[in-house]
Amino acid sequence: MYDTGALQQRITERLSELGIPQLPGNLYDPIRYMLQIGGKRIRPLLTLMAADLFSVADIEEAVPAALAIELFHNFSLVHDDIMDNAPLRRGHQTVHEKWNPNIAILSGDNLLIMAYGQLANCPADNLPAILKTFNTMAAEVCEGQQSDMDFERTDIVSIDEYLNMIRLKTSVLLGAALKMGALIAGADQTNAQSIYSFGVDVGIAFQLQDDILDVYGDPEQFGKQRGGDILANKKTYLLVKAMEMADVATRTELRAWLADTDHPTDKIDRITAIYNNLGVRSEVESAKQLHIERAYTALDTIPVQSNRKTPLRQLAQALLNRRQ
Amino acid sequence: MYDTGALQQRITERLSELGIPQLPGNLYDPIRYMLQIGGKRIRPLLTLMAADLFSVADIEEAVPAALAIELFHNFSLVHDDIMDNAPLRRGHQTVHEKWNPNIAILSGDNLLIMAYGQLANCPADNLPAILKTFNTMAAEVCEGQQSDMDFERTDIVSIDEYLNMIRLKTSVLLGAALKMGALIAGADQTNAQSIYSFGVDVGIAFQLQDDILDVYGDPEQFGKQRGGDILANKKTYLLVKAMEMADVATRTELRAWLADTDHPTDKIDRITAIYNNLGVRSEVESAKQLHIERAYTALDTIPVQSNRKTPLRQLAQALLNRRQ
Repeated sequence: MYDTGALQQRITERLSELGIPQLPGNLYDPIRYMLQIGGKRIRPLLTLMAADLFSVADIEEAVPAALAIELFHNFSLVHDDIMDNAPLRRGHQTVHEKWNPNIAILSGDNLLIMAYGQLANCPADNLPAILKTFNTMAAEVCEGQQSDMDFERTDIVSIDEYLNMIRLKTSVLLGAALKMGALIAGADQTNAQSIYSFGVDVGIAFQLQDDILDVYGDPEQFGKQRGGDILANKKTYLLVKAMEMADVATRTELRAWLADTDHPTDKIDRITAIYNNLGVRSEVESAKQLHIERAYTALDTIPVQSNRKTPLRQLAQALLNRRQ
Repeated sequence: MYDTGALQQRITERLSELGIPQLPGNLYDPIRYMLQIGGKRIRPLLTLMAADLFSVADIEEAVPAALAIELFHNFSLVHDDIMDNAPLRRGHQTVHEKWNPNIAILSGDNLLIMAYGQLANCPADNLPAILKTFNTMAAEVCEGQQSDMDFERTDIVSIDEYLNMIRLKTSVLLGAALKMGALIAGADQTNAQSIYSFGVDVGIAFQLQDDILDVYGDPEQFGKQRGGDILANKKTYLLVKAMEMADVATRTELRAWLADTDHPTDKIDRITAIYNNLGVRSEVESAKQLHIERAYTALDTIPVQSNRKTPLRQLAQALLNRRQ
């Protein structure tokens, strides 16, 4: 098996060798910029780790699919940042801020096309299945992003709707990254589906933890302002659950604080107090735990020597125990 | 061989049977809307006609590629209309006007993903070649759109730069549409390249004619306001050539009129007069004629009975002799 660090190294190298054209600069400079400002490359790593788990003959066969996943991820960040009007990404100016929204639309489009360009280099016998897995995921990510935007203008969102939104927007990408690696290694449909489920449930648990850290994380370790989601009136598991559990008076108070834009510190403190009174933290911790257990159950069903699964377990643990 | 009308009918039917999901409505309603407001479906027709030219065993094999081409075309229209701030498309509100720019970005993204969804249904043995042809074209269309936007802020554009921009932005899509049909029918690389060249040169000639019609067309038949390109300071073959041919005094006058936004009627009349004095119309007519001849030369080299080429010749003639 490959060492996780060696796989990461391979991804970094291959991303720097994409041969992105120089001209037109306004199309390709933003693409180079996005790929250079980093990110942890977790998603393409998952593709290579899954291929390795299922004993791929040559790990190189899985590299184009891994690169496609990373390019897709960057496409979605560039376009989401326009839609969310976000000034910063990975501590740097977003593309639409550094250039302009039109350039961000078009360079995002080209990142998506470059992702498919990598898919065309996947082993030909797997190509139809790889393409279908990728396309399904890609459409679902768009559906998740649209639901997230729709939720901004919706007062009541159910827990099921919220979970489905985060599954589509962020988790199916992890699932598809793993499944593509598995398919290239020759895994059968059942095993490919199991590793997909592992990724999706890890992704949901990860997002739920993100919701917790926004309110209960140590801002110094988390690296973000505490209560950022609260100030943005972002639908999180905490808010959705609080709206569900609150009595009429508390719900009225919650709505009043959501409408408030003049007292940011009080808003964070009061909404946090409501969360504490209702006990929503333990609710979201339970939900997170449920998805972690589902993830490991799915991994357990895969008929591969247990020690081959160790790197994936370790990666999942690192993701799910992070404080930042 | 198939009757052209029968192929058009097949495209219309299959586009109405795509099975576009209902939800989220803000993602899929704009896609349905774009596909319903029409268009002449020339590009997917080219795919089926090329497959038919090379005697494809079953025309159905080429339908997914044809649909992919039409979906891609609609993706590029939705995103280009945002970038160009266009209020109308095919006489209807553009997606970003009817909904909003964020919805237009995301539904455009999904149209591109749906195009690739269709490609996944192409015959597996052709899939790598089809995907590469499509990806090359898609990246080039983005490059052409970026160059077009860059030209808005550039005073001097050469004729070569202009021709390359329209080749990328509008013509390679026609070439790729034909080439994909040819590849699916089993055409060899030489013939696939010849039909591609035919499409690209027809596309360039078509765009040059568009430049002519803006100034010299009958507005009633052309269906657009005369001089629309002039008022928008759009780089056209006429303007680029005029800047190239003009003496210092005329170029100064031309620049002054380009800077003028207060006298639209005079602006159109004066710039048209400059075009007439310089004789740029005959220059663009010659360029158009050159590309038409190149197109037919490419078609002539294809070793297929001449009468099988008649439908493609007729379609090209209809496109290139249009007055609207």
